[in-house]
Amino acid sequence: MINFESDYIEGAIPEILDRLVQTNTEQTSGYGTDPHCAHARELIKKAISRQDAQVHFLVGGTQTNVTVIASALRAHQGVICADSGHIHTHETGAVEATGHKCIALPSHNGKISAEQVEATILDQKENESYEHMVQPKMVYISWPTETGNLYSKAELSALYQVCKKYNVYLFVDGARLGYGLASWKSDLTLQDLAQLCDVFYIGGTKVGALFGEAVVILNPTLDEDFRYAIKQHGGLLAKGRLLGIQFETLFESDRYMTISKSAITQAQRLVKALEEKGYSFQFPPESNQIFVIMGNAKMQELRKEFAFHTNGVIDATHTAIRLVTCWSTTQEQVDALIKAL
Amino acid sequence: MINFESDYIEGAIPEILDRLVQTNTEQTSGYGTDPHCAHARELIKKAISRQDAQVHFLVGGTQTNVTVIASALRAHQGVICADSGHIHTHETGAVEATGHKCIALPSHNGKISAEQVEATILDQKENESYEHMVQPKMVYISWPTETGNLYSKAELSALYQVCKKYNVYLFVDGARLGYGLASWKSDLTLQDLAQLCDVFYIGGTKVGALFGEAVVILNPTLDEDFRYAIKQHGGLLAKGRLLGIQFETLFESDRYMTISKSAITQAQRLVKALEEKGYSFQFPPESNQIFVIMGNAKMQELRKEFAFHTNGVIDATHTAIRLVTCWSTTQEQVDALIKAL
Amino acid sequence: MINFESDYIEGAIPEILDRLVQTNTEQTSGYGTDPHCAHARELIKKAISRQDAQVHFLVGGTQTNVTVIASALRAHQGVICADSGHIHTHETGAVEATGHKCIALPSHNGKISAEQVEATILDQKENESYEHMVQPKMVYISWPTETGNLYSKAELSALYQVCKKYNVYLFVDGARLGYGLASWKSDLTLQDLAQLCDVFYIGGTKVGALFGEAVVILNPTLDEDFRYAIKQHGGLLAKGRLLGIQFETLFESDRYMTISKSAITQAQRLVKALEEKGYSFQFPPESNQIFVIMGNAKMQELRKEFAFHTNGVIDATHTAIRLVTCWSTTQEQVDALIKAL
Amino acid sequence: MINFESDYIEGAIPEILDRLVQTNTEQTSGYGTDPHCAHARELIKKAISRQDAQVHFLVGGTQTNVTVIASALRAHQGVICADSGHIHTHETGAVEATGHKCIALPSHNGKISAEQVEATILDQKENESYEHMVQPKMVYISWPTETGNLYSKAELSALYQVCKKYNVYLFVDGARLGYGLASWKSDLTLQDLAQLCDVFYIGGTKVGALFGEAVVILNPTLDEDFRYAIKQHGGLLAKGRLLGIQFETLFESDRYMTISKSAITQAQRLVKALEEKGYSFQFPPESNQIFVIMGNAKMQELRKEFAFHTNGVIDATHTAIRLVTCWSTTQEQVDALIKAL
Repeated sequence: MINFESDYIEGAIPEILDRLVQTNTEQTSGYGTDPHCAHARELIKKAISRQDAQVHFLVGGTQTNVTVIASALRAHQGVICADSGHIHTHETGAVEATGHKCIALPSHNGKISAEQVEATILDQKENESYEHMVQPKMVYISWPTETGNLYSKAELSALYQVCKKYNVYLFVDGARLGYGLASWKSDLTLQDLAQLCDVFYIGGTKVGALFGEAVVILNPTLDEDFRYAIKQHGGLLAKGRLLGIQFETLFESDRYMTISKSAITQAQRLVKALEEKGYSFQFPPESNQIFVIMGNAKMQELRKEFAFHTNGVIDATHTAIRLVTCWSTTQEQVDALIKAL
Repeated sequence: MINFESDYIEGAIPEILDRLVQTNTEQTSGYGTDPHCAHARELIKKAISRQDAQVHFLVGGTQTNVTVIASALRAHQGVICADSGHIHTHETGAVEATGHKCIALPSHNGKISAEQVEATILDQKENESYEHMVQPKMVYISWPTETGNLYSKAELSALYQVCKKYNVYLFVDGARLGYGLASWKSDLTLQDLAQLCDVFYIGGTKVGALFGEAVVILNPTLDEDFRYAIKQHGGLLAKGRLLGIQFETLFESDRYMTISKSAITQAQRLVKALEEKGYSFQFPPESNQIFVIMGNAKMQELRKEFAFHTNGVIDATHTAIRLVTCWSTTQEQVDALIKAL
Repeated sequence: MINFESDYIEGAIPEILDRLVQTNTEQTSGYGTDPHCAHARELIKKAISRQDAQVHFLVGGTQTNVTVIASALRAHQGVICADSGHIHTHETGAVEATGHKCIALPSHNGKISAEQVEATILDQKENESYEHMVQPKMVYISWPTETGNLYSKAELSALYQVCKKYNVYLFVDGARLGYGLASWKSDLTLQDLAQLCDVFYIGGTKVGALFGEAVVILNPTLDEDFRYAIKQHGGLLAKGRLLGIQFETLFESDRYMTISKSAITQAQRLVKALEEKGYSFQFPPESNQIFVIMGNAKMQELRKEFAFHTNGVIDATHTAIRLVTCWSTTQEQVDALIKAL
Repeated sequence: MINFESDYIEGAIPEILDRLVQTNTEQTSGYGTDPHCAHARELIKKAISRQDAQVHFLVGGTQTNVTVIASALRAHQGVICADSGHIHTHETGAVEATGHKCIALPSHNGKISAEQVEATILDQKENESYEHMVQPKMVYISWPTETGNLYSKAELSALYQVCKKYNVYLFVDGARLGYGLASWKSDLTLQDLAQLCDVFYIGGTKVGALFGEAVVILNPTLDEDFRYAIKQHGGLLAKGRLLGIQFETLFESDRYMTISKSAITQAQRLVKALEEKGYSFQFPPESNQIFVIMGNAKMQELRKEFAFHTNGVIDATHTAIRLVTCWSTTQEQVDALIKAL
């Protein structure tokens, strides 16, 4: 069985395991105050060309989203997001559990526009009952989105302009950031991103690490007392160095981009093959998640050899399936799948 | 200036003030444990024909909604509502502030259907990632809705059947309950309502009282420790008898229905006049809130003599306005408005 | 039965009921935007000699405490209070329900000292694990305290100095403020208080009103978006004018102080009689709450004619009882009690 | 520099790293649904002799405490704990952030007694204002405590009896469970513990794992929808197998006890040496944390070679220091320390 289910089906890149073994008997202080975390912070600040950034390491995505959002907002404030946004749909109401509303907007390919955001902000701000409404104070987007799509540099810039105009924070969930940056469709660099939002994170869990997300805070207001928030949300790992070790490995020798490109190369091969065979897509394929519309008979046939998730029924005879490549996907695995298609 | 802005523009029916004066020097215990509250509870249980019901008095609507919802749900559970629902749009995220998500569904005339609710429940229950989603455990509806519309007895029964099928609570916000029951469009009685949900409340603030909402709990599970919840949400009024006195006044001599009918009589006269003059409506008029589409010039002219809220722009030359009658609206006030139309 | 149980056993001063009757058919806007609230705000600002203050009206004490605290604090911050503080002991965890810890300190006569507060702040600030601890950001005190005692002007000034030194807010719960100000023991005026804290409130519920508390915000940081917080906590009364009407009545013709003095006169008469008869006190009597140690036989005898609460067992034959006078307590009622003693 | 600062200064036992390497390229499903988690669950159920237990794996201690507590309690309920309890002092108010009060009791050696717990429960239950108070619904203890001390089997049984009597849950934080079980002072086995509480957890982070805590639920009420709670609190690790792999390694070949005993052997050697040299202790040494009272000059001398934390000033010339042994502490390290003493 070859697995295209998700980007967290295997462990980590071998270099990470090697370094965990090598550093195992080092004695360090805890909670992210060790030399590996310090080193990883420096590597990331260099990679994004922002020496003024603050970098924190957390364990997982839901925890990271909640920590960033709950730390930034006052009790009457909410976070604007796409109706398909992970915080709105797949985190068991973790944001609401901290007291904040997800203000969900209709989305296209998982994206929301600067115009929508501005209209939503004004709808509240200019309402005569504005104090009876949640005050939008943050915009949350994913890059790539839940459906694997990418905001262009122009789209992201427009969003950030609107946010700055109304003194609203822009937060970019980068759980799959590498796969976006490496995409054939992207016109954005990591340095660009670090100029176009208030805070974002660099996903490790889905991009070669065992676990871990690196939060990059660009707006210093958001950094005030942020470590209290990490602790309160259970993200201050006792052996914090485990996160530092993983991110220094990923950001040395450009490994984060190298492994992301590998996943994207395989995704692009798969897309090309699907297009040639005349398949159509539920969403335009733009990164490592490919949503293909498949005849049900063919789908059943594929299931014998390949694992994947479905993403909704299209019609009586067709289903959307999601095929995911990642850092561990091999040329041979994709060859086998192409052959089977 | 004659005021059609809302149903809380004046004080209370004179009988309530009279009784507050008469009872002023009585010495009673606090927090709803006094004889007036006891008497009011008996009157309400008789009016709804449910001796097994539990009745609690709270101060205002937002407080009541939050107290009922937060008391009923566990941390991972949410409440299904209309996207126009008061808890979703006009309570500054009070429900989310207690940790619970409003699961908002598209609505028609402020109503959601049994089919929509069932689909939403199943979408979560049968999802392979169901534990990553908020579990729907309560349905919140308003009767009348935010747009003044009424669920029929059949519609409400269908909703309640679905709720019972999936072990989900049905909660009816009756802030304007009297105006619904008295409506020419209603096929529902107070006794019916008390058979068709787990908990509802009888609005006092908008129906003749100075303030106060009477929560009626029909499902005993929801009554467990409910008074703790009232206290925690600031609803346990020290001089609780003020609520008892008001509700005993409203439920003696059928006053609650008498004053509601008066408001509805005036609303119906207004609707008839509007129809005769060829006005159209933003929502079908069914209770004491009438949403009329009005030419902008005419609207400006009316504003000289009458106060009312707008409810959105219809087109370049038309605006929707909301005209509200209530227990204090007089025949003369409506005559004046009809004349001006 | 003559009632010394609490200061909320009767309705309101007659002038308040009169004015509610007189204004009943006025048509006003809601939520505190009416002329009565505006007038009451002006009267209070004049009474405290702070034209720059912001005044908001809420319904009850628990609601007021929670609204002020939750609006002021970020998620990782807590509020220092006496271990006997109302928020810590008698509000069903309402503060914690908004996510904030009550950092309770040992108290004497319900009071905490500037030294204790400073030590608590430093204990966290200078701890090597400070980010693992709740950050104290507000101090909550009651004046008078739960046991009827008063901080002197010097004690309050010292507390406020410490708070300012560490950028911590000082919040004074004045549910019984009038009875403190009118006390024979007080060296504090209302104008003093308005210079010695960041926010306080003027209790109406226990001092002549039907209900209502007037929050006075002196530190403008705390006023930002405060009305959102009121709404979210259910305190934005639809017929907000009911609060304005009550507070304009209380602050016209110095009524708030006149009725407070009346309660204190009766309390002082009672204390004098108790002292003469050789009774001792659980707490030094300093305002309208008197905690007397009473032989159990005598207590049973008194119970036949008088209502009061107990406050703990002293020994096998003695119990502490609480006797409360208030604005409605008459000379005759106290005479009867003195006679019975 | 030899480190006695904490039990999380090094990585993990070599067998865990070996297995992470061996399993790295396995392809498994996520979120704890993989075969390694299933296997680890079986091993733990066997070790505790409770086939009916439910076992869940979380990442860290604060997260585990919050998830168990918030999942068990309704909004008006609180958790009784020692005033030195980790949830009360060192988790940045994480429990309060979920809305629940820590009801802190005075403690001795970090322990609270069955009598104290019963008195606290009755104080609320029998209070005439009981609905104005937080309802105690869970008792949280640590075994060993924060000061390294152990409840005896009799003490724990008494606590559990009181809890059952009042329908209150007993939750045991076992972050350092192994070191307690292996202690020369313990009269409790893992099987005993699994009969004497409603829920406990087996600490991995401090006992040989990279990270991870295994929650064991014995009372089925607490297991209902528990995985939703894990997800909401960010504890549902995407590569959940990392936890399964670690716990199957720890519970095979009795490794969890073997490494715990090694730490305790070294602790006991150190205690014996300290006693022989006439040192006294801040708390009676009973597990792997030893709190010694040390002359300041000697302390400064030790600091040149050894790392450790202080735990408060004893007098002008003495300080309490904490010496911690763990699974990775060697005979040679302790020899060096003994020599230096």
